[in-house]
Amino acid sequence: MHQRTARPIDPNSDAAIAGRVAPLPIEQVAAKLAIPPEALYRYGPHKGKLGLDFVGSLATRPRGKLILVTAISPTPAGEGKTTTTIGLGDALARLGRKAAICLREPSLGPVFGAKGGATGGGHAQIIPMQDINLHFTGDLHAISAAHNLLSALIDNHVYWGNALEIDTRRIAWRRVMDLNDRALRHITVGLGGPANGFPREDGFDITVASEVMAIFCLAESLADLEARLSRMVVAQTRARRLIRAEQLEGVGSMVALLRDAFQPNIVQTMEGTPALVHGGPFANIAHGCNSVIATKSALALADFVVTEAGFGADLGAEKFLDIKCRQAGLEPAAAVVVATVRALKMHGGVPLKELGTPNPEAVALGAGNLKRHVENLRKFGVPVVVALNRFTSDTEAERAAVAEAVAPLGVNVHDCSHWANGGAGAEGLAREVEALAVTPSSFRLLYPDAAPLAAKIETVAREIYRAARVEFAPTARAKLAEFEAQGFGALPVCMAKTQYSFSADPSLRNAPVDHVLPVREVRLSAGAGFVVALAGDIMTMPGLPSKPAAHDIFVTPDGIIAGLS
Amino acid sequence: MHQRTARPIDPNSDAAIAGRVAPLPIEQVAAKLAIPPEALYRYGPHKGKLGLDFVGSLATRPRGKLILVTAISPTPAGEGKTTTTIGLGDALARLGRKAAICLREPSLGPVFGAKGGATGGGHAQIIPMQDINLHFTGDLHAISAAHNLLSALIDNHVYWGNALEIDTRRIAWRRVMDLNDRALRHITVGLGGPANGFPREDGFDITVASEVMAIFCLAESLADLEARLSRMVVAQTRARRLIRAEQLEGVGSMVALLRDAFQPNIVQTMEGTPALVHGGPFANIAHGCNSVIATKSALALADFVVTEAGFGADLGAEKFLDIKCRQAGLEPAAAVVVATVRALKMHGGVPLKELGTPNPEAVALGAGNLKRHVENLRKFGVPVVVALNRFTSDTEAERAAVAEAVAPLGVNVHDCSHWANGGAGAEGLAREVEALAVTPSSFRLLYPDAAPLAAKIETVAREIYRAARVEFAPTARAKLAEFEAQGFGALPVCMAKTQYSFSADPSLRNAPVDHVLPVREVRLSAGAGFVVALAGDIMTMPGLPSKPAAHDIFVTPDGIIAGLS
Repeated sequence: MHQRTARPIDPNSDAAIAGRVAPLPIEQVAAKLAIPPEALYRYGPHKGKLGLDFVGSLATRPRGKLILVTAISPTPAGEGKTTTTIGLGDALARLGRKAAICLREPSLGPVFGAKGGATGGGHAQIIPMQDINLHFTGDLHAISAAHNLLSALIDNHVYWGNALEIDTRRIAWRRVMDLNDRALRHITVGLGGPANGFPREDGFDITVASEVMAIFCLAESLADLEARLSRMVVAQTRARRLIRAEQLEGVGSMVALLRDAFQPNIVQTMEGTPALVHGGPFANIAHGCNSVIATKSALALADFVVTEAGFGADLGAEKFLDIKCRQAGLEPAAAVVVATVRALKMHGGVPLKELGTPNPEAVALGAGNLKRHVENLRKFGVPVVVALNRFTSDTEAERAAVAEAVAPLGVNVHDCSHWANGGAGAEGLAREVEALAVTPSSFRLLYPDAAPLAAKIETVAREIYRAARVEFAPTARAKLAEFEAQGFGALPVCMAKTQYSFSADPSLRNAPVDHVLPVREVRLSAGAGFVVALAGDIMTMPGLPSKPAAHDIFVTPDGIIAGLS
Repeated sequence: MHQRTARPIDPNSDAAIAGRVAPLPIEQVAAKLAIPPEALYRYGPHKGKLGLDFVGSLATRPRGKLILVTAISPTPAGEGKTTTTIGLGDALARLGRKAAICLREPSLGPVFGAKGGATGGGHAQIIPMQDINLHFTGDLHAISAAHNLLSALIDNHVYWGNALEIDTRRIAWRRVMDLNDRALRHITVGLGGPANGFPREDGFDITVASEVMAIFCLAESLADLEARLSRMVVAQTRARRLIRAEQLEGVGSMVALLRDAFQPNIVQTMEGTPALVHGGPFANIAHGCNSVIATKSALALADFVVTEAGFGADLGAEKFLDIKCRQAGLEPAAAVVVATVRALKMHGGVPLKELGTPNPEAVALGAGNLKRHVENLRKFGVPVVVALNRFTSDTEAERAAVAEAVAPLGVNVHDCSHWANGGAGAEGLAREVEALAVTPSSFRLLYPDAAPLAAKIETVAREIYRAARVEFAPTARAKLAEFEAQGFGALPVCMAKTQYSFSADPSLRNAPVDHVLPVREVRLSAGAGFVVALAGDIMTMPGLPSKPAAHDIFVTPDGIIAGLS
């Protein structure tokens, strides 16, 4: 029989640490940003949404300083980008600044898979972590429903006569589910006879890979959301005529499903700093940052807004700057590159199981990865600082090796212990960020809108990845020409590449040069407003590991959710 | 280009009528039932959930009177069961009684399909109707996620070595989506090579058809929820050994996903009467009533609780009584059978387009359907009254024909105009219900737990459907024997039959006799705790019509959701 009470709770788990903090009532958190009570739509005592009328009223306010937290190329050793974002926000608040944090909201896929939640860790978490990591305020469910309603309308249109002459072999609109479920990657639908429609190939992506999610995170208003959804290209006819979402007559229903979700969510850090946690697109086939509406709301409400971008700076920061900042007219006042001694050691060639052995030489060598990210960020004219996220196994010599490595670039390294100490552990970083943020901006985008699509891809490959050249598959090159002929030439490019290397080969750590970037396929995200260039196999529906986190999550007899990390 | 402002709003639509009422703050609604503020988890100003600690504390309180609203066999002419439930609740409140309503929560499938929402109509609605009809408090999304997590864990188990020796041809656990999407009825999954698992046949049901939903609506506590989920049979081995959900090690995560959803929702009618709207299982392959936890909470908080069951009384009321009341130890104090002149006219043989022509003879003839439902309800020892839901096209003679038809049974008919007049239009009905409810109960179940499964099916067929006999398919009979051998013989049966007739033939209106009930298939719902008997083709994933409601729903420039009905 099922043993309901048998499982112990780990007192050092993130959930247990977060559980020892009494959260402030959400009204009090909102009051720190002078959000009036009538603009706050409460989801229980500790979560809220900001009404869209209020959000709209913020448009004309002066904006605070935007601080981007990004990282070195990720390794299994971990970097701690989200904890640093939270710790830095808390540190700024401790220094008396009006600070807010903007983060992506978690997906259930990683929560039940291998990666765990996305609410930070240790003493740098946003709370209530269980709620945020599970359904939160339902935004991802709303996005799934809106996406899948359009899927159903496409097949239903074909079923009832197909007046639009959709070619069922050329339906680009897959279905989505907010779970890791490899069995749904490639499926056939419409089987079982005429009553069930026309059999065709299809598949599910994870919800965060939906173009609806990307649009949700780039739209400036409900009207913009509707216009972008309408523009999405979902299929082609046999004659290759593009079919747009609006032709399926369901965009109004999609907006109805998304209306409440589109309101930015507000929660708090363990130290009571306001956090706007809203949207979370994939960082490969999409741009990987929280919603524009949350970022802009936070900038109107706080003097300092700390936010993060997905993966390492080659992918996350580049897209944050060239896609989100370009479209939304934002510019960061400073960028923080998060590194760890352990991860740099891996970039320096040390295998995972030997990371406990001190090795300053390997750290110095692996710091090549960090240096290149710093140099890259400077190409955007953004002031940079390094946050060295401390692990107990780090030695003084190793930490010194990091600082030495980047000193020639004129960049400071700040030892951070927010994981153990909360905001107090990131005060040095916060002071420097504040100083950098008041320097006059010289922000620039990497390439102009007017450049040809292929040239945009080549610019990113050359300037950021340091590739010798780009090798376009013939079909990819033909498609880029097609997109330009269709009027999409002015869009920015969204690079889908492995996050583990500057190159397209995940095994090439540190700072490879002279590699070739193969662009096998390009896709149009006409509603999100970018052209995706795929350099390598990109997984849009993850699978579960053999021992998924789902095995270890449970509810105690007291009703407490345990086992989330 | 997309025309955002071009669409007019119908001022006579349910949405527009509801929109003209200013809802009470949900705290005030809760206060009518003496729910303390700390037990109320607010979702914005007009929706709430009741904390499970508070719900648990209600167990020892005396219970109010439970009033079941059911109906004649449905026709396209409409009956108005939900509006009558709401109108009766409002009428009891107008008479000064402490009243509450319990309803099922809507599914997005019908909202975007043909049927529309499930929040009543006219002046008998629960509000905020847009919120309730769309995501509400996220319960259905939570149920979908819990269900599909188990699906992913099953395929993942097979992928990683299949230690349980699951026969992939005998996985009974399909996937779910809360939409009408016929293309997903029969699919193949796991295609595309070894990385994606083992190809197999699968399919999606609509979420309300999930056994998780049935369990959600029958569980008495989180512990009971967990135990029932653990017991579910999801697959078999080649040797026909049963695989239970708990063996996939994800039940703890499922409960974590369902924890908040399991708290009963509270909203209000347009007249401010508290309404607990929670859960909504299919009325064919499941039992079709709102959650036990909501009904029991309401009974502890109010003197009169008005609730409804799905479809006509042959299906909805029978299952409400033989499944829900049996399992939960509930008994109704009175039952209301809703009828309309128009629908009785159809049972009397008049085609849909001639319903506008007065025809008291056809009404008298069609009242045979009503009479049989009344007789059936009396077999359970429940006092009965008829609510005649008024349409403007009804004539005096037609209404008199209804009263005359049931007079020999000693049953009163109350003319009700709550659609037009709110609770004031159902006061006569409310007075009679109150009188009936104080008569001493003689409630009895239709069959004992100890009867063989086939005998239970035969009892329902004979006593309720008036079938001459049941024709079991040989495989169905063998399976019933198998279920009994496996220890499931004491479960009640859940009949899945067309709602349009007492028989299994939807074209046989009125009160057919001597028909044969074919039971083609039986299924075990071991967690919900019933055996489903399928008499005919039962659709567990609806399709969209050629002009779905989704085409007409939109958000106005002011952010108002229009087009819901």
